[in-house]
Amino acid sequence: MTVQRPLDVLHNSLESPVIVGLKGGREYRGTLKGYDMHINIVLQNADELKDGKPVRRLGLVIIRGDNVVFISP
Amino acid sequence: MTVQRPLDVLHNSLESPVIVGLKGGREYRGTLKGYDMHINIVLQNADELKDGKPVRRLGLVIIRGDNVVFISP
Amino acid sequence: MTVQRPLDVLHNSLESPVIVGLKGGREYRGTLKGYDMHINIVLQNADELKDGKPVRRLGLVIIRGDNVVFISP
Amino acid sequence: MTVQRPLDVLHNSLESPVIVGLKGGREYRGTLKGYDMHINIVLQNADELKDGKPVRRLGLVIIRGDNVVFISP
Amino acid sequence: MTVQRPLDVLHNSLESPVIVGLKGGREYRGTLKGYDMHINIVLQNADELKDGKPVRRLGLVIIRGDNVVFISP
Amino acid sequence: MTVQRPLDVLHNSLESPVIVGLKGGREYRGTLKGYDMHINIVLQNADELKDGKPVRRLGLVIIRGDNVVFISP
Amino acid sequence: MTVQRPLDVLHNSLESPVIVGLKGGREYRGTLKGYDMHINIVLQNADELKDGKPVRRLGLVIIRGDNVVFISP
Repeated sequence: MTVQRPLDVLHNSLESPVIVGLKGGREYRGTLKGYDMHINIVLQNADELKDGKPVRRLGLVIIRGDNVVFISP
Repeated sequence: MTVQRPLDVLHNSLESPVIVGLKGGREYRGTLKGYDMHINIVLQNADELKDGKPVRRLGLVIIRGDNVVFISP
Repeated sequence: MTVQRPLDVLHNSLESPVIVGLKGGREYRGTLKGYDMHINIVLQNADELKDGKPVRRLGLVIIRGDNVVFISP
Repeated sequence: MTVQRPLDVLHNSLESPVIVGLKGGREYRGTLKGYDMHINIVLQNADELKDGKPVRRLGLVIIRGDNVVFISP
Repeated sequence: MTVQRPLDVLHNSLESPVIVGLKGGREYRGTLKGYDMHINIVLQNADELKDGKPVRRLGLVIIRGDNVVFISP
Repeated sequence: MTVQRPLDVLHNSLESPVIVGLKGGREYRGTLKGYDMHINIVLQNADELKDGKPVRRLGLVIIRGDNVVFISP
Repeated sequence: MTVQRPLDVLHNSLESPVIVGLKGGREYRGTLKGYDMHINIVLQNADELKDGKPVRRLGLVIIRGDNVVFISP
C-alpha cells in the first residue's frame, strides 16, 4: 500500500486552483504557486471567501501554515 | 504486552474510510490516502460533516495535523 | 524516592480501560491499545462521553496527544 | 543566591499532596507520584475540584504538561 | 513545475506595500522592510486597519510571526 | 549599548517579591525562588490576585512558563 | 535590497520608548532595556495601557515573547 505524503499531494496541486481553510473559519481560494515544509502557502489571484462567496480580492498572498486547517485542490 | 503505535494504526487504515475530528468540532469523512509524522492527513472523496451528516463535498483534501483531535477508522 | 514516569504509567495501563479527557471538555472511554512519546493515544472500543455517559460509539480511535488533558486508568 | 529549579521543587514534592491548576480553570488534587521534563504529571488518589471542592474521583491520573498552569505542593 | 517558496515571495516584496493579517482579525498596512524565517515582519509607515481603514498610526513596527495569518503584497 | 537579557533580569529578582501575570488575566504575587530557561517559575508565599487583591493563598507554587505573560519585580 | 532583520530593528530600539502589543489586546509602554531571540522583552518604567492610556504602573517588567503581537519603537 503506498502512502500519499501530504506534501507530495500539495506539490501535485501546484498551478491548480485550491481552497485553503483557516482556523476560525476564513477560507481563501486561489492558484497554488508555492508552499514549504511548514505548509506556509503562496496563492495567486486569491480571494477571501465567506460562505463560499468571494468577499475580498487579495491577489498574491502568503498564508502562514500555522493557521491552515485544510487545503483542497 | 505489545504497544500499537498510533502511526502504525494510521498506516493500517490506508485506503479505508475514516472520520477525522478537528478542533472546534468540524469533522471530515473520506478515504485515508496518506499521512506523515505530524499527522497531516490526506483524504480522498472527503465530505465535511455536521452532526454526522455531509454538508459539503471537498473531494481530495489535505488536513494539517495541528488541527486533528481524533481519527477513527 | 522513585519517580513514576508518566509514559511508564501509560505503559502499565495497556489493555486496560481508560478515560481520556480532551481540551474543551470532550472525553473518550476505551481500552488503551497504544501510545507514543507525544501522548498520541490508540483506544479500542472507544465511546465519546458527555457528562460521563456514552453519546457516540467510535470503536478504534487515534487521539492526537496535543489535545489530551488527562488520561485516567 | 541559589536558584530553585522548578523541576527540583517538583521532585521534592513527590509523595506529597499537590494541587494542579489547568488552563480553563480545572484543578486536580492528589498525591504527586511522578513527572517528566515536559511537566507531564502523575497523581494518585486524584480528585477533580470545582471551587475548591471535589466533584469527581479520578484515582490515578496522568495530566499532560501542556495544560498545566500551576502546581502547588 | 517551479515552487515559489513563501520566504522568496516575501523577499520579492521588500520595499513594497503589504497588508499583514493577524489572528483575531487585526490588520496592518505598511512598507515591508524585513522579515526572518519565523515570518517575524518589519513594517515601516505602518497603520493598523479596521474594516480596511486606518485607525492608528504605528510607524515602524515589528510583528511577531506567530500571530501572522497572511501577508499580501 | 548593553542588552539586559530577560533571564538575567529574572535572576536579579531572585528572593524579591514579583507579580506574575498569566494568560486569561490571573496574577500571582510571591517571592521569586527559582526559574528555568522556559520561564517556568517558582514562587514562595504566593497569593493568587484578583483586581490586585489576594483571593487565595497558594504558598509554594510552580508556574509553567507557557502561561506566563509578564513578570514584574 | 537589504533586509532589516526583526531582531536588528529591536536592537536599534534599545533605550528607546516602545509600545508592546500582546495577544488579547493588552499593551505596555516603556523603555526597551533588553530582549532575546524568543522576543522575550525587558521594559523599564513600563505602564499597562488601555485604549492608549496608562491604567497601571509596572515599572520593570519581563514580557514573555510568546504573547507579543507587535513592538513599535
